[in-house]
Amino acid sequence: MAEPDETGSGEDRLIARHFRPLATDPGAFALSDDAAILVPPAGCDLVLKADAIIGGVHFLADDPPDAVARKALRVNLSDLAAKGARPLGFLLSLALPKEIGDAWLSSFARGLKDDAERYGCPLFGGDTDRTPGPITVSIAAFGAVPHGAMIKRSGARPGDRVVATGTIGDAVLGLKLRRDPAAAGRLGLDAATRDRLIARYRLPQPRNVVADILRRYASGGMDVSDGLAGDLAKLCRASGVDAIIDATCVPLSEGARRAVAAEPALLAELLTGGDDYEIIATAATENLDALIKEAAAAGVVVTEIGRIDAGEGRAAFIGPDGNPLVFARPSYSHFD
Amino acid sequence: MAEPDETGSGEDRLIARHFRPLATDPGAFALSDDAAILVPPAGCDLVLKADAIIGGVHFLADDPPDAVARKALRVNLSDLAAKGARPLGFLLSLALPKEIGDAWLSSFARGLKDDAERYGCPLFGGDTDRTPGPITVSIAAFGAVPHGAMIKRSGARPGDRVVATGTIGDAVLGLKLRRDPAAAGRLGLDAATRDRLIARYRLPQPRNVVADILRRYASGGMDVSDGLAGDLAKLCRASGVDAIIDATCVPLSEGARRAVAAEPALLAELLTGGDDYEIIATAATENLDALIKEAAAAGVVVTEIGRIDAGEGRAAFIGPDGNPLVFARPSYSHFD
Repeated sequence: MAEPDETGSGEDRLIARHFRPLATDPGAFALSDDAAILVPPAGCDLVLKADAIIGGVHFLADDPPDAVARKALRVNLSDLAAKGARPLGFLLSLALPKEIGDAWLSSFARGLKDDAERYGCPLFGGDTDRTPGPITVSIAAFGAVPHGAMIKRSGARPGDRVVATGTIGDAVLGLKLRRDPAAAGRLGLDAATRDRLIARYRLPQPRNVVADILRRYASGGMDVSDGLAGDLAKLCRASGVDAIIDATCVPLSEGARRAVAAEPALLAELLTGGDDYEIIATAATENLDALIKEAAAAGVVVTEIGRIDAGEGRAAFIGPDGNPLVFARPSYSHFD
Repeated sequence: MAEPDETGSGEDRLIARHFRPLATDPGAFALSDDAAILVPPAGCDLVLKADAIIGGVHFLADDPPDAVARKALRVNLSDLAAKGARPLGFLLSLALPKEIGDAWLSSFARGLKDDAERYGCPLFGGDTDRTPGPITVSIAAFGAVPHGAMIKRSGARPGDRVVATGTIGDAVLGLKLRRDPAAAGRLGLDAATRDRLIARYRLPQPRNVVADILRRYASGGMDVSDGLAGDLAKLCRASGVDAIIDATCVPLSEGARRAVAAEPALLAELLTGGDDYEIIATAATENLDALIKEAAAAGVVVTEIGRIDAGEGRAAFIGPDGNPLVFARPSYSHFD
């Protein structure tokens, strides 16, 4: 039987040592073949997603390697959750600068293994290369939904309610606190709150435990990774509807609320910053209570934040004074 | 219905303009959702593969963008071919330095579209990021084989014959000629031959047209991407057998033969260099003729190069003098 190549090249040994323990599915052949086999679950569609994270862009150079690994997998798991899909596995393409050694890789692989187990999403294969650039972690994840049941961006209908999981804006606030240590004092945040917010930036908490619940009750949905306002506008354009959001209903953590109280202009940043990895979904009013209750029972707070109207693809956020908020930049983009 | 986001962020517009035309499968939702759907073909296993190429590592900075795109897809298609799989589609994670503009992207997308059509392998999704490093193109490709029928590295059996598609060593010779313009004269190669060899480095010719034929007749196989000697040793280790190869039977192009005649020590480089993207396979003797004939009818020369013996995972290459060749480094590795 195929065994990973402990006697092979440096690359083979690296893969055998660090990544073989993550390849628990028999279709991964213990990473000793050129490709893996996935036997699709009967009656299911596969949901496919690829997302990469890059050092200095999506994470900071001194982030712990295990957190980098977890973030790389979790940004993909978050999309599977938003689509109502159960994770099946992932492929990993890892580009590493010369200075990355065994200690970094051990920690990276440990974090990845923990999350692969936690989310039931084993490694199926991939490749490892040297790069003259920054660490680049590209993951392609695949999940399963019953045939035809993927939650789409295009499913929102006039009359639906809009909900969000968890809290919005913590990650962008955490990044700000990380980059500007003086900000915590200015915003009235103690060390524990600051650390909680920074952790929200460093380590997304994808909402996979509510994927099945969303699939039963939501009409449309997507994950919030580039900012609530911009992502909701994408959903509205895909569905051909408008969303009217009560900005005062958008769920904020205790720390985010304190920061906004100290500096009200921050609210716009929290609503347009990236890296939330929460889910926005739409649901017919008759499904709303069941969705919120079952999600709560699964440990995820789901909050109603507005409604869907007939329209042409706009998302309006009504501020505390009853007027729509105006955002300089509704969502994060790597390209102008 | 979902439309790509021409009105969205710069990233959305970039994706809509350049990559939407490649997303021809309805399950890709014209790249306007967070994820794609693949409806698995009935009775098939999915074959999964991810491989990345990086500027300055796997291609050169001044390679034409359309060739970079083709190479990125083809290195994955080559693995699908070697596994006997029919391509179904791919996901793309693209990391681009700041200086990459619209002209580069247009050419890149055009090359990718041509090959997506040529190989019947449409784009299902992915992401695009800015990177402070070199261009990094990560592709995850998926194909289909009848349930249980993927060709494995571990399938070679004592008594089998070893075959190779096409010609071996052209790409490593092409890279040498590209880096050292004086080498062509020294090796007695004219300009047309030099250009053909360089093209073999720049643009792999994956053998997908023989995937079905291999699946019917081969007992084991893999693609040759890191050098024939090292890759064959991997197959031997996975199968728990030895391979005895007649080095004088390894198929060389006219140019490679001339180069080896001028500089006999080159043979070892051709047998251990990377980037061939040919296939080595093993087949029971009774299947050999049919394999070779049907592949020839499909336009691919398949050459018998040796046999499989009982053993412990070694590949020996017998040289012109009847003695085994000794390689300093049997295969390419990014890691020591």
